[in-house]
Order: sequence, then structure tokens, then C-alpha cells
Amino acid sequence: MKIRFQPYGVATQVEPGITLLQAAQQAGVEIESVCNGKGTCGKCRIIAPHGVSPLTALEARALSEVELAQGYRLACQATVTGDVEAVVPEESRRSRVSILVDGLQSELPQDPWLRVEAVQVPEPSLEHQIGDLERLEQVRANAGLEPISMTLYALRQLPQAVRQVGGVLQLVMADQVVLEVLPGTEPPRLLGMAFDIGTTTIAGYLIDLATCTQLAVASRLNPQTQQGDDVISRIEFSERGDGLVVLQRQVVEAINAIINDTTTQAGVARESVYGITLVGNTTMTHLLLGVSPTAMAQTPYVPAFAEMRSLCAADLGIRAHPEAPAWILPNIAGWVGADTTAVILATDLQNQSELALAVDIGTNGEMALGSAERLIACSTAAGPAFEGAHLSCGMRAADGAVDAVRIGDDLIWHTIGEAPPRGICGSGLVDLSAELLRVGVVSKSGMLNSADEQRALGLPEALVTRTRGEGRQRAFMVAGAAEGAGGRELLITQRDIRELQLAKGAIRAGVEIMMRELGITADAVRRVYLAGAFGNYINPENAVAIGLIPSFPNADLLPVGNAAGSGAKMALCSASARKEAACLTSHVEYIELSGRPDFQDQFAESMLF
Amino acid sequence: MKIRFQPYGVATQVEPGITLLQAAQQAGVEIESVCNGKGTCGKCRIIAPHGVSPLTALEARALSEVELAQGYRLACQATVTGDVEAVVPEESRRSRVSILVDGLQSELPQDPWLRVEAVQVPEPSLEHQIGDLERLEQVRANAGLEPISMTLYALRQLPQAVRQVGGVLQLVMADQVVLEVLPGTEPPRLLGMAFDIGTTTIAGYLIDLATCTQLAVASRLNPQTQQGDDVISRIEFSERGDGLVVLQRQVVEAINAIINDTTTQAGVARESVYGITLVGNTTMTHLLLGVSPTAMAQTPYVPAFAEMRSLCAADLGIRAHPEAPAWILPNIAGWVGADTTAVILATDLQNQSELALAVDIGTNGEMALGSAERLIACSTAAGPAFEGAHLSCGMRAADGAVDAVRIGDDLIWHTIGEAPPRGICGSGLVDLSAELLRVGVVSKSGMLNSADEQRALGLPEALVTRTRGEGRQRAFMVAGAAEGAGGRELLITQRDIRELQLAKGAIRAGVEIMMRELGITADAVRRVYLAGAFGNYINPENAVAIGLIPSFPNADLLPVGNAAGSGAKMALCSASARKEAACLTSHVEYIELSGRPDFQDQFAESMLF
Repeated sequence: MKIRFQPYGVATQVEPGITLLQAAQQAGVEIESVCNGKGTCGKCRIIAPHGVSPLTALEARALSEVELAQGYRLACQATVTGDVEAVVPEESRRSRVSILVDGLQSELPQDPWLRVEAVQVPEPSLEHQIGDLERLEQVRANAGLEPISMTLYALRQLPQAVRQVGGVLQLVMADQVVLEVLPGTEPPRLLGMAFDIGTTTIAGYLIDLATCTQLAVASRLNPQTQQGDDVISRIEFSERGDGLVVLQRQVVEAINAIINDTTTQAGVARESVYGITLVGNTTMTHLLLGVSPTAMAQTPYVPAFAEMRSLCAADLGIRAHPEAPAWILPNIAGWVGADTTAVILATDLQNQSELALAVDIGTNGEMALGSAERLIACSTAAGPAFEGAHLSCGMRAADGAVDAVRIGDDLIWHTIGEAPPRGICGSGLVDLSAELLRVGVVSKSGMLNSADEQRALGLPEALVTRTRGEGRQRAFMVAGAAEGAGGRELLITQRDIRELQLAKGAIRAGVEIMMRELGITADAVRRVYLAGAFGNYINPENAVAIGLIPSFPNADLLPVGNAAGSGAKMALCSASARKEAACLTSHVEYIELSGRPDFQDQFAESMLF
Repeated sequence: MKIRFQPYGVATQVEPGITLLQAAQQAGVEIESVCNGKGTCGKCRIIAPHGVSPLTALEARALSEVELAQGYRLACQATVTGDVEAVVPEESRRSRVSILVDGLQSELPQDPWLRVEAVQVPEPSLEHQIGDLERLEQVRANAGLEPISMTLYALRQLPQAVRQVGGVLQLVMADQVVLEVLPGTEPPRLLGMAFDIGTTTIAGYLIDLATCTQLAVASRLNPQTQQGDDVISRIEFSERGDGLVVLQRQVVEAINAIINDTTTQAGVARESVYGITLVGNTTMTHLLLGVSPTAMAQTPYVPAFAEMRSLCAADLGIRAHPEAPAWILPNIAGWVGADTTAVILATDLQNQSELALAVDIGTNGEMALGSAERLIACSTAAGPAFEGAHLSCGMRAADGAVDAVRIGDDLIWHTIGEAPPRGICGSGLVDLSAELLRVGVVSKSGMLNSADEQRALGLPEALVTRTRGEGRQRAFMVAGAAEGAGGRELLITQRDIRELQLAKGAIRAGVEIMMRELGITADAVRRVYLAGAFGNYINPENAVAIGLIPSFPNADLLPVGNAAGSGAKMALCSASARKEAACLTSHVEYIELSGRPDFQDQFAESMLF
């Protein structure tokens, strides 16, 4: 019998009588299950109205009437009786994708823009029949304080609050705008959230704005992935009917879910989130605002806007404090977005006296090179290969991904979560290709050598016998069928190596052209920041070995994790950091690689190992 | 059989077989009917699911399926077969209430705050990959223009608009904020709306902001009347559960309906309304904003706010241009609201070199007296009697209301619409009481003289025989049973005269106390503005005759119609008028009559004729 799991689209043939949970495991679909299939935790909810066994008493207890009417079951209780079309709801998906959420350990700048002011409003009298707001303004003016303006939400709170505790109020103020009026002497907690909206994943950080400390973090798959994996397919989708509206709503839904996740973790109310910063690539920031990104997909690739946007979060549908401001950091160009602005902010490139390079490889690869004197940036469509796309063996950095490889007498791999290998993630791919190159399984031109050629080079038989197929169909076995998760061999194919060469060649060409633009050589660069999950886990020597980045003889190679998220947090905590970010859009020079006659040559050259 | 008409609560006994339209006419309920009962115009829609004849073919054609499911019928087709509970939907109510909508004929100040700017944005290139917004900003900066900020709505329009007609755009700008971006060379029409939100009726004026001319006007009953006729019952309702939310929604629904009415009349889109001003009494402005007015109903009667509010109309649920600003003019005190601010603005009291008085009698009575030097205002709960409330014979100024009376050998009346008399409106009441007083039917103390006393005074028998009853039950017949609409005599009772005395006494006492406060006598006053529908239709000599206002020997008495609406229009057309209005809240001194020891004495004295 056949069972298909949505939204993944994964299908598998199963024997009747096995549970949906077992079927999911067989198909490699991860479903939450805390009680290990005992039917008691109620976590493995799945929607499967047809082709399954009748409802059990355990399920009737665990599921609500509404859920039962919608076809919800417990995956550990329902067994297969026919062909099944099952949907794994968001809450049951085991999100084991590792997203780097710590980022730079730099101290967040203490420059509070949000504060609480305590004030006691005198009672009115028949002789002085002055309105609540006007008495509040008078008592502040008498104390020599600057005038305020009050939001509608705060004004609605005022008449009740002022009559509760003898006129004692706590005002939550963003600059001179009152966001909230609370009665009593207890100042409320001032929280904020920073978001890094990736094409694939969205990470959100809950920050205590009084101390600039992180209280919680959560991440979710960007639900826009339902409309395509990459920005081009999203842009195409945005042009259809209400596509733009759908994409805008989807990203906001994920943002709201993350606000819910983090505030629940920290045990605080979502209304305590008084400010939000958001970064993402240019397409993501356009879709977040509901602004058409269409022009970015056509030459000359211009965005609708680049500059920083500041608005009310609620106007985007974000559910935090109803008057919370939201800042979307500025984009630099169509293909260098607010996430790169945030990376620059976090690594302080714009203020450095010596030359530094920042490379952020996510779904795309963005780079910035320079110093306080001059700073340039560019982008390459390099990332997908390092996130597992377009590779037969590729996968994201999740459980079962080969993330490190060494070759001695034979090949030794390591996987995330020590799980049976299911595929190879970016850092594993860099290791694997560097090692294969070093021992001679792969040639400088990127050809997988045949078994005979390998033997001629004196390679140990344990390696040689891993070679499969011939010519363009040639492949190299990383893990055997007995070791692997799916009972199949894990192979890296000749085609996979070509994809890797395209990806690393694009990034390398970008770095080379930026150096040429600045008129410098690699020895002038003093710091190289490797941002993103990939940058954090990569073995830097192997990255140099495969030529992903040049050898920088005088530079420190610094993995900085999710520097985009760190930049978003800095902008959240500090008005002066936001100001600095706002200036970056005009300060940073964008280099369009496709417009340069030297790029194709450099690219071809950089593809070689 | 019994039929009751909602929302009026009017019930009547009818014969079976008559149409609902005939029954409504019998009950005095006015329903729209253009085709005169032929069943062809479809205007007399009424909701009556039970107790009526089966659906006719004419009705099946005129009504939609949704309407049929909701019990809609045509009142001229459906006949009574049993007891009927009928609801007259808003669209079928014949709004024949006269609302004064023209107001002061003063020229509106030409001080445009909204303008259209034409701009041509250059095309981007691969060499200059500059965003749409940034190219627009550059071309403006090159022309030496001030920087702009762009609303989210306008930003969403930009990428499409800029690619439509060679980059030629029309920007609609409020100061330096871009509300709308349109492609092409045709500048859009710039419209705005001014609203006067009365406790009973809401009037809206559609204004062309380029020429400051009025394009259309419409008015609706304030739907909050469902929750009570006066502000106190609204305040009480606002304290229950979601009462405040209900009241806020109701007033906004009426505002939206009026925007629809006026823009339809003028043949323009509601999105062309780029700005809105609103005035109303303090309770109305609080309810419009959803701010609790509770404190105003308790001593010391303070509002939550007085100062001018400026916000986005859409944030209140108002459907005009989605980024249209809305200004609510400032209140002066809990019982002197933004409508009085607008009256002062319209009559320019705050700038007059000589003393002037403005009296606005609506559901309440507000007054302002003074000049540029010093300006004071007060309020009395006087109005309802002049709008027909609390009087056995009272009604609003609608068809069939006696609006003028003369007594010679007998009494002669005139009614609005020349219809059979149904009641007496404010101006008729002033005429009637002044005439009864002059000829001696009513004494100076307000007693209705008996027939014998009248004969003793030598009154003609035609008048004397109009007296009915004795003592406190005594009444005077204004119109006979054969003349009247309901087949009954139209009477003014002793109690009605007492109510009138209370109302006119309160207003007179207010005026007297304001003169005392300024240390002036009536001969110092040079202008008296009579605002409101009542002020417009009143016979000024009779108002003096009954002592409603003092005799001002040196003053011009000027009826100024709906001066509150005129003030709202001025504030809509002119930013400097708004600025002036914003200052009025602190410039005008409020006098609380209930707080003054001399008020009760003055009130008692002023009640005498």
C-alpha cells in the first residue's frame, strides 16, 4: 500500500497494519513523538481521514472534536488499511534543522530608545476641570520634561489607568511617543524582537531591551517555501493573482508563530514586545512589506526600494504590542539585501581601519569587502549547493547529515546527531571534496578518477572500491547501504562535484573581482568573517583547499555564525546602530557581477580546484 | 391585528389585508416609495418574515436570494395576515428630517495642505542599479525639492506605476508625505470630507480641496441612537461589556455610509477622499476614538482628552483613501466639545475686537461669549426640549412639524412640508409660547390661564375654547382632531410649558452668568450668532420675548446655520485653520455652571417668562 506525506510530497510503499508513525520513519519523515508511540503524549498528530484503522479510545481522549472532524489522528495509533494521503501539521513536524542563532558574541550597544517613565497625575476638580491627558501633560511640563504624543492605544488606556492607583502611572515611551499607559508603581518589562528572514528559515530572537540580553530564540521554516525554494520562484509566484498577498501573509504568519514560541518560552506576553527589527534579502524584505519584487528578476535587477523602512508592526499584520514600531533594515541592492546590511553592521566593516572581508553563504552568497575608507559588496547565486539543493546527495544541516569527512586509509565520516547518514550538508561537502582532491580521487579539473586511475596513483583499495559507474555516471560511495538511513548507498556523483565547482567558483570569482575593484591582493586583507550556518561549521583550511576562498596569508578567519541576526539584534537594541544601518545603503558600493566583462573569465578560472 | 415597526418601536392595530406600506403610513412611519406602491421601484424594502402574505412574482424579481432568506419583502406588496414585527432597514427609511447643512457662507480659507506633484523618474541601468524609490528621491533632490517620506500604500504602488508611462508619476502629497503614486500625466482630484457628528444626526460634506468648494452633502441618523437618545445613556451603554466597541463601530458605520452617499452623488471614488476632519460634542469625539467617556458623567465631569487628535482615518475603520489623515478638532471641556470649537472657528470669535456671543442649541446648548481679549464658554443640558424630547407635543423639525405660529383672532399655524400637523418643533415652540404669552393665554409665571381667566382678559372665544382640562392637567389645543395627522388634537400641555421654561431658563442663565463673568451688560454685545438648525429657523424677536436670550440692544442677531459643520470644513481646507483650532482648547476658558453658587438663583429667575 502507498502512503504519501504532505507537505513534503514524500511517498513510500508500506505493509498494511503498520502505524502511520512507523510509515513516516520508513519514509524519512520526522514526526514529534515524546512518549515513544505509547499514545499518551498526543504530540504525533497527523491528518489522515482515509485508509486508516478506526479511532481508538486513546485518540478520542487526546483529540478535540474539531480536530476529529478535520481527520486528525495520532500517528502512533492509526494503522494503515489502504492507500493513505497524510498531512503532517506544523505542530507535529520535528524541526531538527540546525539554525545558527547565536551569532556574533559582540556586546550589544547600550543605547536605549525605549524607556519607562513614572508619573503621578493629580486629581481633577470642579474648579480645574482639566482632561486626563492635559493633566498628565501639565505635570510633566511642570517637571521640565519634553512634550509627549500619545498613541490611540495608550489614550484608550488612560482614563481607566489614571483612576486606579491614585493617578500613579507607568508610561512606556519610544522617544517621546507613549505606546502604553499602565497604572501603579510596577514598571513593565521592555522586550523586543529581532528577525532574520531567510529564504528557507526564519529566526527570531526575543531580547530584553533594558539589559540587551537574549531571553529566547526560535526558528521556523519560511512557509513561502511552499511556493518555491528560491527567490526567483517566489518572485514568479508573486506575479500571479493574489500571489503577493499570499506570500506577505505567509511570512507574517511565521513571524507571529515565532513571537508566540519565544514569548511562551520566556513566559511573557506578546504585548510586551514593544519594537521589532527585521532583516532579510531584498526579495524577502519586499515580500514582507507586500511590495512587488518583480523588477529584481529582470535586468537591470532593481528593487522598488532600498532605504530603511519604519512603520507600525501591526500594519503588516504582526501581532506584538499594537503600537510597536517595526524597522526593516535597508537593502543595498536587488541582490544584496538587509541581511547583508546586518552582517556589515555586526562585523563593523564600515568602521574598520584595515581591510576585511565578510562572506555570508545562505541560499545565496553575499560578500562585502573593504574598510572605513571604501566598502563594496556583491552577490552570487551560489548558495543552494551548500544547502543541499541540486545535489543528489545534498541535504540541509540536519540530523543524519554528513558534516565532516577525513580520509586516511579509508574514508571516515561524522553526522549531525550521530544519526545514520542520510545525505551531505555544506560543511561535509567542503571537507569531502577537499579530501578527495588531496588524496587524488578527484583531479584539479574536478574529474572523479576511475578505479584504475586511482590505483595508478597508489590509493588504498578501501577507497578505490568505493568508485561506482563510469564517465559522467561515475560516483563515489561515501557510506555503504548497511550504514545509511535509507538502506541505500550514499554517493557523491560526478554531477554533484560539478555543481559544487559552479557554486564555489561563483563565490571565489566574486571575491577576486572585489579585490580587483579595490586594487588589492589577498595579503592586504586582515580579517575574514565567515557568516551563516555554513560559515560557522566549515573547516576554513578545506575551504581554502578547494579554492572557495583565496588563501589570505595575513588574515584571521573568523566564523561569526548568524551575523545577520546579530546585526538585527544590534539595530533592535540601539537607535544609533539603526542610524548607522540606515546610512549603510548609500555608503556601500554595489558591484553587479553580471555587468562586468571580466566576470565570466574569472568564473571559469575559479571553477577549477 | 397588531403591527410593530422597528427600530422606531411604533405599534398600531390594523385590518388584515392592508399592505405593510399602508400600515406604515397609518402608524406614521415613513418608508421610501418612488413608484407609489406599484411594486416596480423596489425602494420600499422591509424585513417581515412572519404574519404576511406569500411572496409575489414582483417581489421575487426585485429582491436577491440573500435578501429573501433574510425575510425582506416589498412593503407595498406584502399584506398583513397576522401579527407582524417589521424592521425598516436603513435604506428604506425616508430621511425627511431637515438637517441644516449649509452653515456659514463665509469663504473657506485657501491654504492647501494637500497637493499633486508631477515627477519623471529616470530608468535604471545595470551601471546604476538604483531602486525605484531612490531614483525618485534623486530626481527630486536634483530639482532642489525637500525630501519626502512614502507611506506603505504608496510604496506598494510605486514599482508598477513607475514602469507604466515612461516613469511619469503624479504624487499626492500631504505636506512631505506621499499618500499615493499614480502613473501618467493626469493629476487626480483631491477631495476631503468634513463631518459634524451630532448626538442625533451626523452630517458629512464632500469638499474639493483644490477649489475649496462643496461637491455633495449627506446626513444620517446617528446609529448610536439605538443605544439611547442622549449622551448620558450612551455613556452608560459604553460601560457595559463591549459597549464602547459597539458605539465606536456604529458611528464609523454611519461615517462610511455618508462617504458612500456623497462620493456616489458626486460620481467619485471614496479613495479620492485624502483627508477628513471631524467635530462633535466631547462624548461623540470620545466614542469616535473608542476612548471611554465615563468620567464625564461623574463630577468633576472631565474628559479623557481635550486636545486635537490627528491619526490615520483607516485606524478608526473609516474607509476613504487608506492613508488619509483624520483630524478630530479639540474639545474645550467635558460638556463643551469639538463642535463648539468649530462654531468658534467658523464665527471667528477668538479674533473679534468687539464682544460677540455664539449660541448653539442642539441636543445640548453650548455658548461662547467674548472677543480676542478673553473668550469663555459654557454648556447647559437645555436642548432636548427644542428637539422635541420630553414634550407631549414635541417632535424634530420634520414634515408635519408646526414650525411657526401667529395669534390674531384665532391661532394660525404653519407646518414643515405643508403637511397635516403631527407635533411642534423648536422654532414653532418658541413662536407658540411667545404668542400665548403676548395675548395672555399663558402668564408670566408660565401658568396656562383657565377659560374663565382668559375671558376676563378679553380674549376672543376662538382662543378661549381651545383650553382643555384643569390645573396641572390643563392644556391648549393647537390643532383640532380634523386637522391633525393622527386624527387627534395637537395639544401643548401645562407640563410642556414647564419643560420649555426649564430649557430656556438654563440657556438664559448661562448667558447671564457669562456676561457677569466678563463683567459686561447686554448692551456691550455687538453680534449674536444663532447656530444650529434651531438657531437658523427661530424667530429672534420671539426668542427675546420668551426670554430665551436677553435683549441685546446694540447687537446684530445672525442665524449662522450649522456653524459646527462650517468650522469642520474650514479645518479641512486649511492647515492654518486647524492650527488655530488646536490653540482654541487652551485659549477658551470653560465655565462650569454647576460649580457656581449663583447658578441656581439665576436659573430660577430665568425660568420666568
